[in-house]
Amino acid sequence: MSNYAVDLNCDMGESFGAWRMGNDSELLKYISSANIACGYHGGDPATMKRTVREALAQHVAIGAHPGLPDLAGFGRREMAVSAEEVYDLVVYQLGALTAIAKAEGARLHHLKPHGALYNMAATNAALAEAIAEAVYRVEPELILYGLAGSELIQAGKKLGISTANEVFADRTYQQDGTLTSRRQPNALITDHNVAVRQVVRMVKEGKVLSQQGTEVEIQANTVCIHGDGAHALEFARHIQEVLQEEKIRITAL
Amino acid sequence: MSNYAVDLNCDMGESFGAWRMGNDSELLKYISSANIACGYHGGDPATMKRTVREALAQHVAIGAHPGLPDLAGFGRREMAVSAEEVYDLVVYQLGALTAIAKAEGARLHHLKPHGALYNMAATNAALAEAIAEAVYRVEPELILYGLAGSELIQAGKKLGISTANEVFADRTYQQDGTLTSRRQPNALITDHNVAVRQVVRMVKEGKVLSQQGTEVEIQANTVCIHGDGAHALEFARHIQEVLQEEKIRITAL
Amino acid sequence: MSNYAVDLNCDMGESFGAWRMGNDSELLKYISSANIACGYHGGDPATMKRTVREALAQHVAIGAHPGLPDLAGFGRREMAVSAEEVYDLVVYQLGALTAIAKAEGARLHHLKPHGALYNMAATNAALAEAIAEAVYRVEPELILYGLAGSELIQAGKKLGISTANEVFADRTYQQDGTLTSRRQPNALITDHNVAVRQVVRMVKEGKVLSQQGTEVEIQANTVCIHGDGAHALEFARHIQEVLQEEKIRITAL
Amino acid sequence: MSNYAVDLNCDMGESFGAWRMGNDSELLKYISSANIACGYHGGDPATMKRTVREALAQHVAIGAHPGLPDLAGFGRREMAVSAEEVYDLVVYQLGALTAIAKAEGARLHHLKPHGALYNMAATNAALAEAIAEAVYRVEPELILYGLAGSELIQAGKKLGISTANEVFADRTYQQDGTLTSRRQPNALITDHNVAVRQVVRMVKEGKVLSQQGTEVEIQANTVCIHGDGAHALEFARHIQEVLQEEKIRITAL
Repeated sequence: MSNYAVDLNCDMGESFGAWRMGNDSELLKYISSANIACGYHGGDPATMKRTVREALAQHVAIGAHPGLPDLAGFGRREMAVSAEEVYDLVVYQLGALTAIAKAEGARLHHLKPHGALYNMAATNAALAEAIAEAVYRVEPELILYGLAGSELIQAGKKLGISTANEVFADRTYQQDGTLTSRRQPNALITDHNVAVRQVVRMVKEGKVLSQQGTEVEIQANTVCIHGDGAHALEFARHIQEVLQEEKIRITAL
Repeated sequence: MSNYAVDLNCDMGESFGAWRMGNDSELLKYISSANIACGYHGGDPATMKRTVREALAQHVAIGAHPGLPDLAGFGRREMAVSAEEVYDLVVYQLGALTAIAKAEGARLHHLKPHGALYNMAATNAALAEAIAEAVYRVEPELILYGLAGSELIQAGKKLGISTANEVFADRTYQQDGTLTSRRQPNALITDHNVAVRQVVRMVKEGKVLSQQGTEVEIQANTVCIHGDGAHALEFARHIQEVLQEEKIRITAL
Repeated sequence: MSNYAVDLNCDMGESFGAWRMGNDSELLKYISSANIACGYHGGDPATMKRTVREALAQHVAIGAHPGLPDLAGFGRREMAVSAEEVYDLVVYQLGALTAIAKAEGARLHHLKPHGALYNMAATNAALAEAIAEAVYRVEPELILYGLAGSELIQAGKKLGISTANEVFADRTYQQDGTLTSRRQPNALITDHNVAVRQVVRMVKEGKVLSQQGTEVEIQANTVCIHGDGAHALEFARHIQEVLQEEKIRITAL
Repeated sequence: MSNYAVDLNCDMGESFGAWRMGNDSELLKYISSANIACGYHGGDPATMKRTVREALAQHVAIGAHPGLPDLAGFGRREMAVSAEEVYDLVVYQLGALTAIAKAEGARLHHLKPHGALYNMAATNAALAEAIAEAVYRVEPELILYGLAGSELIQAGKKLGISTANEVFADRTYQQDGTLTSRRQPNALITDHNVAVRQVVRMVKEGKVLSQQGTEVEIQANTVCIHGDGAHALEFARHIQEVLQEEKIRITAL
């Protein structure tokens, strides 16, 4: 049996009311953990319940995916929220999904913040600690997903929470281990083969080639699979195939 | 020691963002259980946390007070929601408050629907069952508060949930045990003494004098104290005093 | 030149934030007037602007499509709103779209309420008068679209506003001229040919065959084309073709 | 007759649904222009209508007071909105209030952005231009209120719109003419006499004493009167009295 394993996670349940988003039912076949939107940036109680049920049926681990209170902006616009506001909104959203899962006889497995909240928590220690504190006080056994090596991972470790370093298949890295900003020309990897190779190397060797040409150490516990976009499903199938060939098990942590 | 006891409950935590409502801190001195708004008709995560803390400090039992998704209408406008929509929105709001309480080291004690949801659940069996089902699946040990003798109480009993029959000090009753509609001229009791006397009689004798002049049997487990209005605090003090004189203990169920 | 003419209208601009709905760009090729959502049940300022621009580019008349304040329910759930609340929310939404059109150098042509508001205004005279009053006080030259022969049409006429009787291609009618309720088995016409034939007859003869087998007089100024559904575009093409064959001009009123 | 004149403006109509804020009816007696919230950070259609009516009854000029889409944060939290998003949300809100005023037979007089939007527009030229552009395209005759000497004033001038330089009675100034940040210890002037004297000097001499002890030139067309706080009304009365003694007319621009 393989010594290598990695989690494939995907944002899910981001429909809202009459509006549909994503192809959750299909993508659930390829991933090991689902980050379920909790109503602030997307998702609503009915969508959350449906997504929990579908994930359970596919034996995919379920996690909370709380976002900023910005439905119109899909939680992608940074907001000047205080650490206490972040703590409060994470507790609220986490609780809502916990109850929906409990009503289905299930428990949550992890929490990953969404969009601008994820990005702010990667570099802002106070906001990162607020998120970790919310998890710690509500469901301390959850795994906290954050950008590999980020402030959010540090904040989780400080409180003794399990953490998962997240890496991206389709993003390039800088020599300090951070993601290349999307404002830079080479931020995205559009070739599926290159993207998957990057993941394989991060999992097996713990390294990634930076834009500066140097090798950078990186811990890859979970890989973010995008649910949007024309090629989302195709990419999910492709990475699953290659990981199997490489004898890397796909499994929740 | 007295053989008589009754619970005094009050809606709380109905501020929202920069807007303040109610006089929670003062009213908490007189009541035994607080119904805390959960964000749909009023309340927000910060207000919910603050209200939980204040109630705990005053040794007042805390309950969820879920409402319809109608912030602009304060949850007072009936909406054509399906039973499944009601189930979903109660699970969601109940979960959110449960997590906020858990983060403060506390557990919820009861659930009472708000406004139009309360009214619809009093007479619509399908909606009543949806609320009871939500409680049953998320926190079955909670006490379900509903209008005395209503469909909501029946729905709770059917599922084996504890229930509390709620009565009103300041509302008159019909000979079939229902409240006089607010559209009728004599719906409200404005004289505090008359209102308190009605409560004392309901608690001690299980009876209320209807508008038709007949005596009606009524079960009074909990009395609704209004938090709004100029005389809310004054009335709370008054009913507390009289109940003490009458040797009726004020206590959560 | 033909003596017959009819307007084809379609609900548009019902996307919201990151969520897309409908196939507006394609449908605009087949219709003569667009009902643009105004932010309460769907639509947002960016979507409204984009839809106004696309409609103008296709020479399609633009109208306001105000709805109930129920984003989660897409304005389809009836709410116990007062006549004054309806007046206020129509003025607000109408004003918002008027400004967006004005900023593009355009003027509005009509107003058609959405979903539950449309249905309530068909039978509730007070709500119908509130909508007509809002149009009258803000943009009295607009044409008020309502269900053929409904209270909304009556309310518009009472105030001297231009009105357009709306008919449905894919719905059956009762002998009193009302639509067969969707709860009845034969409410919908799924055969495109039958649906289009019904429209042609309503336009040319002012008559429709009721479910009771009697002929009913009906005025058909504008036909509602649905934008949702798998066959929306196909049906739009089909009705355009047949109307051209029948020498019925498709034109805004 | 006096050669000196100044406008006193106050944010109004910031109640929402069942929640009340401010003491609009009383404050309207002391001010010359009212900035009316438009539903995004506060205000709702009913509140907007009521506020327009009250302002008209008191002969106070009415203006739009658009904010960020952040009801929970009262529009006080900066958000990473694009210039196009700002343009769109200003057009939308301005249109809504314009229609409400038109329905009351009135026209708007000015526009002043709210909270975080006001602050961002003071220093961010792109956002300032977006606001000015929205005014220019919807109601070019409106007066654009902005922080004295700010980017917003520049943006309005560039488009040929009338502008009003706003000053604050209760804030101290830096030697570069900007406000002392609220994070600094001496940002606020709590002594009413000092505050009013500062205004008198700004109006009569066009100068203000900076925290660095130097005199700074400042243009004072309009003074912001706060509607919140325990002493709002008292201060409004006081500044009205002193301005009358100083023969400075209080009048909308």
